Amino acid sequence: QKILFLVYKATVAEDSAMENIVTEKKAEESHRQDSADLLIFILLLTLTILTIWLFKHRRFRFLHETGLAMIYGLLVGVVLRYGIHVPRDINNVTLSCHVNSSPATLLVNVSGKFYEYTLKGEISANEVSDVQDNEMLRKVTFDPEVFFNILLPPIIFHAGYSLKRRHFFRNMGSILAFAFVGTVVSCFIIGLLMYGCVMLMKQIGQLGGDFFFTDCLFFGAIVSATDPVTVLAIFNELQVDFDLYALLFGESVLNDAVAVVLSSSIVAYQPEGDNSHTFEAMAVLKSFGIFLGVFSGSFALGVATVSLTCPHVTKFTKLRDFQLLETALFFLMSWSTFLLAEACGFTGVVAVLFCGITQAHYTYNNLSPESQDRTKQLFELLNFLAENFIFSYMGLTLFTFQNHVFNPIFIVGAFLSVFLGRAANIYPLSFLLNLGRRNKISSNFQHMMMFAGLRGAMTFALSIRDTATYARQMMFSTTLLVVFFTVWICGGGTTQMLSCQHIRVGVDSDQDNSVSGVFLQIGPDGIERRSTKQESAWLFRLWYNFDHNYLKPILTHSGPPLTATLPACCGPLARCLTSPQAYENEGQLKDDDSDLILNDGNISLTYGDITVSTDATGTRTSGQPVGGINSDEALDRELTFGDHELVIRGTRLVLFELHGKKQNHV
Amino acid sequence: QKILFLVYKATVAEDSAMENIVTEKKAEESHRQDSADLLIFILLLTLTILTIWLFKHRRFRFLHETGLAMIYGLLVGVVLRYGIHVPRDINNVTLSCHVNSSPATLLVNVSGKFYEYTLKGEISANEVSDVQDNEMLRKVTFDPEVFFNILLPPIIFHAGYSLKRRHFFRNMGSILAFAFVGTVVSCFIIGLLMYGCVMLMKQIGQLGGDFFFTDCLFFGAIVSATDPVTVLAIFNELQVDFDLYALLFGESVLNDAVAVVLSSSIVAYQPEGDNSHTFEAMAVLKSFGIFLGVFSGSFALGVATVSLTCPHVTKFTKLRDFQLLETALFFLMSWSTFLLAEACGFTGVVAVLFCGITQAHYTYNNLSPESQDRTKQLFELLNFLAENFIFSYMGLTLFTFQNHVFNPIFIVGAFLSVFLGRAANIYPLSFLLNLGRRNKISSNFQHMMMFAGLRGAMTFALSIRDTATYARQMMFSTTLLVVFFTVWICGGGTTQMLSCQHIRVGVDSDQDNSVSGVFLQIGPDGIERRSTKQESAWLFRLWYNFDHNYLKPILTHSGPPLTATLPACCGPLARCLTSPQAYENEGQLKDDDSDLILNDGNISLTYGDITVSTDATGTRTSGQPVGGINSDEALDRELTFGDHELVIRGTRLVLFELHGKKQNHV
Repeated sequence: QKILFLVYKATVAEDSAMENIVTEKKAEESHRQDSADLLIFILLLTLTILTIWLFKHRRFRFLHETGLAMIYGLLVGVVLRYGIHVPRDINNVTLSCHVNSSPATLLVNVSGKFYEYTLKGEISANEVSDVQDNEMLRKVTFDPEVFFNILLPPIIFHAGYSLKRRHFFRNMGSILAFAFVGTVVSCFIIGLLMYGCVMLMKQIGQLGGDFFFTDCLFFGAIVSATDPVTVLAIFNELQVDFDLYALLFGESVLNDAVAVVLSSSIVAYQPEGDNSHTFEAMAVLKSFGIFLGVFSGSFALGVATVSLTCPHVTKFTKLRDFQLLETALFFLMSWSTFLLAEACGFTGVVAVLFCGITQAHYTYNNLSPESQDRTKQLFELLNFLAENFIFSYMGLTLFTFQNHVFNPIFIVGAFLSVFLGRAANIYPLSFLLNLGRRNKISSNFQHMMMFAGLRGAMTFALSIRDTATYARQMMFSTTLLVVFFTVWICGGGTTQMLSCQHIRVGVDSDQDNSVSGVFLQIGPDGIERRSTKQESAWLFRLWYNFDHNYLKPILTHSGPPLTATLPACCGPLARCLTSPQAYENEGQLKDDDSDLILNDGNISLTYGDITVSTDATGTRTSGQPVGGINSDEALDRELTFGDHELVIRGTRLVLFELHGKKQNHV
Repeated sequence: QKILFLVYKATVAEDSAMENIVTEKKAEESHRQDSADLLIFILLLTLTILTIWLFKHRRFRFLHETGLAMIYGLLVGVVLRYGIHVPRDINNVTLSCHVNSSPATLLVNVSGKFYEYTLKGEISANEVSDVQDNEMLRKVTFDPEVFFNILLPPIIFHAGYSLKRRHFFRNMGSILAFAFVGTVVSCFIIGLLMYGCVMLMKQIGQLGGDFFFTDCLFFGAIVSATDPVTVLAIFNELQVDFDLYALLFGESVLNDAVAVVLSSSIVAYQPEGDNSHTFEAMAVLKSFGIFLGVFSGSFALGVATVSLTCPHVTKFTKLRDFQLLETALFFLMSWSTFLLAEACGFTGVVAVLFCGITQAHYTYNNLSPESQDRTKQLFELLNFLAENFIFSYMGLTLFTFQNHVFNPIFIVGAFLSVFLGRAANIYPLSFLLNLGRRNKISSNFQHMMMFAGLRGAMTFALSIRDTATYARQMMFSTTLLVVFFTVWICGGGTTQMLSCQHIRVGVDSDQDNSVSGVFLQIGPDGIERRSTKQESAWLFRLWYNFDHNYLKPILTHSGPPLTATLPACCGPLARCLTSPQAYENEGQLKDDDSDLILNDGNISLTYGDITVSTDATGTRTSGQPVGGINSDEALDRELTFGDHELVIRGTRLVLFELHGKKQNHV
């Protein structure tokens, strides 16, 4: 309620009408400048696309589109920084009034007229003179929240939506271990090493400001988010082993989510005493609680909103007939998940990731084929544009950002610790996982994963989000260099690394299936581990059955009709929730999601028993008639169906082959 | 260079660290609030989509999606206004300091820390207390520039891109007359009537502020932009006569562009003397010059950037193989046209309209079939979302906008003058046009056009752009009511009006072709007018030939190869510019754009002669083999090809029919 009125006698009295015109002109000028700045980025992206085309056309694989976008960004940054001298605008006066708080809205009284100002942020004292000097450079600097709220969501959603679920679920355990344990380990290793580095800098007097241990941990968290887009693009092109692909992709998708939540809980670390930045068990516990709460909250929100609303909406309306409405609805639902999570104080990016996975799992099945294509293409486009925009902005910002703090010791330390942190993530975890995995992560896979630990969009977005303090500015500058180095050197050397590590390329879906078959044959010699394997997969199988028999039929058109899976007493409810398509599908494609259970050979064997035993109807066609499809026919089908279908068909084929083999063995 | 430092001793000294936290919390709170606000709109759109589906499913045509979006917006507006009471935030202090100018950037020194504020805009003195009171209502109010720079461009681009060029060009003359002459007439009629109205209000003392003649003209300009989305959607569904559709659609698309430029040149009207708002010939001339300059500049920029860059880029790169790159490039090119126009001081919306038309004319032919679908679907989706967002925001703003000025006399006057302005546009112009048109605009068509003069997104965006003065606020409130009334009453009554005016529905492409045939048969009785017709079409034919023989081959893969159309001396250049596809296409689809010339029966007759005479190769297959296609076959083809293709094929069929008939007559 305390509204302070500050009266300042204007020294130069100006005519009100003239001033109005000046203000209008200024606004127009500013708008034109904004348009021109945005145009620079659009032209940058256009240039990038054209060069990418050239590279793809010439099958040139040393530089990925993201690396290229960075190079173009760098060039434009140099031009903006050193090439262009904008004549100083006399009218562009900056006033400074000293008041006792910084409200979100400020009213300024200019000779009787009120102007409204909104808070943009704090700037450091030494920047004050820069504000006038480099208006143009400041203009091309985006609000950092743009990255988090506009550019990152489509990228993360697309990652979730295009996740190859079959391979993902097959390597689920390892991916979770790398993403959660690995990222936390990496974060703390990097944090500790950097703290040592900072101590050293303090000793030799190279530190120009505060740098606490929490800052080091924060740095560890943000550079632990890997983003191997470059590597995965090459993997896709060369058709590298699917398990390696799944491990890398799954890890990078999930560790982005982990890193976001981890960094925000590190920021939230606040010991009781005013003298902060000391160790305190309670505060650590609280931070850990925040981590768990925010992560699980975002996860639950992403999964729940989608699985509670979207599939039902798409299932029971006949929206299929209106593809435009369907696509629009799908887009809006996904966006609203992000907004809901942000509005609830959770992390929208994490929610949108799990939203993407859930949409792919349930809603996708209810969409008409046209909308399946449309949504895929839409998010592919958004992902492409956002990603290249972020990377070209990264290049640009190396020159246009005004408060870079490059410290040689810190940079060398960061590179070393990033390397060691990645090593401490991959090798020990792989060793531990290999104790439990039948399908071992071989040492060349480990080296490849180590090498593919690029840093990208998420690391950048996290580090640019707050560049107010000295510590954060140094982190930001160093992070930029880490991203540049990893994307150019590690990304560019992927093909060499692959051939150097003798990792086989050119694996297609069929060959991969035969690999699953191999597991089965080598299965019997690992018989002592089978029981433990079944134990660990027990929870997963339970979930699978629940999903297949109840969730899928309730939420989508696929799966067995509920009338068959629910007990007889729920008959009316079951009939009301089952869509007509489910009955139609019953005979044919009932195993759409058998891919989920295929995480080990012996599980797919038991799968056969389970379905047979849970089926009370007895009317099921057994594997025989479908199993009769020969591989030529299957290949034909694969050529006609899309990628999503392909995976499903491929799996079914294996299943029935396994089933057949088992019967032969019996 | 004049940096003023204002020192204010803080009355309540606060701890710096505590304050930091408070600022951070405030920013977080504000972000959450923003997310929640956006979520409201997303849910509104979702609700709209679901209800639209229901309406479409039940074939309920009294309420279009835009009308529905407005109703939902209204309801949410009521809830926000009267239903929710946000507890006043104590921390949300608004400071007021009196200084002598309003710079774009303001630095505030809070106990040694500098905070940066950016200018949001001027607010009137009586609003100052509202700023504190209705923080929440102000939050859901978007920056008006969002409409112009983000939401309107995709709508306008989509209109240009989806223009049915065949019918558009056939009625080109009439459309241009309605759009240019009609809009200007309507603007001045409305302006004059409203000025009378304002004079009356001044007499009886109902005017609470300044209201000049230029304001009246401005009002005339903004309510002259028609937007019959509702009507056209019903036309599409009922397959109403294509000429009526083309007239309405073409007029509304172009008069949006005219209205934007007209309103900005009225704003730019500034007589020499300081005592403005008086009539002055020079200033009027200057405004007229601005109108011409901005319109032709935007037009030239839209056409030039696209036709100079995009087709070449898509033609000579083999981007066709990478649809994602192609679509991304197409999107970026279109966006950069908008930005370029804005950066140059032209009107981006106008540029983007002509960009859309040009893209459809040239670039579309170079795209791969997948990208043609993708781009269409992408812009369809963007258009759908933007349109519904604007209409639901319109509904919401009726209650959440804080400075409504509803004046009964002004409102009644506005409705009357809008009606009279539309009448003064349609009837006299139709009479004049009918003197020159063979295919008369019948009186029931005229009534329908009169009735279909809805006001929509453009009118709203123009009126919300500036609501600083009393006059503008009154205009804004009145405009909202005009939009509501026309969309609900005129939009809802379209079906009734159609049947009442006995306008035939259920016209499909084939029947329409037979209509062209009818023109030919009624041709001979209008023989005295034929020569004038040919005169007026002379320029157009010249352009067509130039376009068909040179521009199309240079810019796209279609059309005859340049080696055939260019003189022999240009041989090497021609060979270098002609794409391999052009030779392939030579035999078959050479008349892809014959639709352009089909604006009258006799022109299509002469067309036959022209192509024969300009063809020096002599290798052309004549109309005979293709003309042999019977209509059943053509129908089959139409079912397999998309809408765009359909139009082309349909036209070709007529052409050859006409050709054949001519030969029979000879």
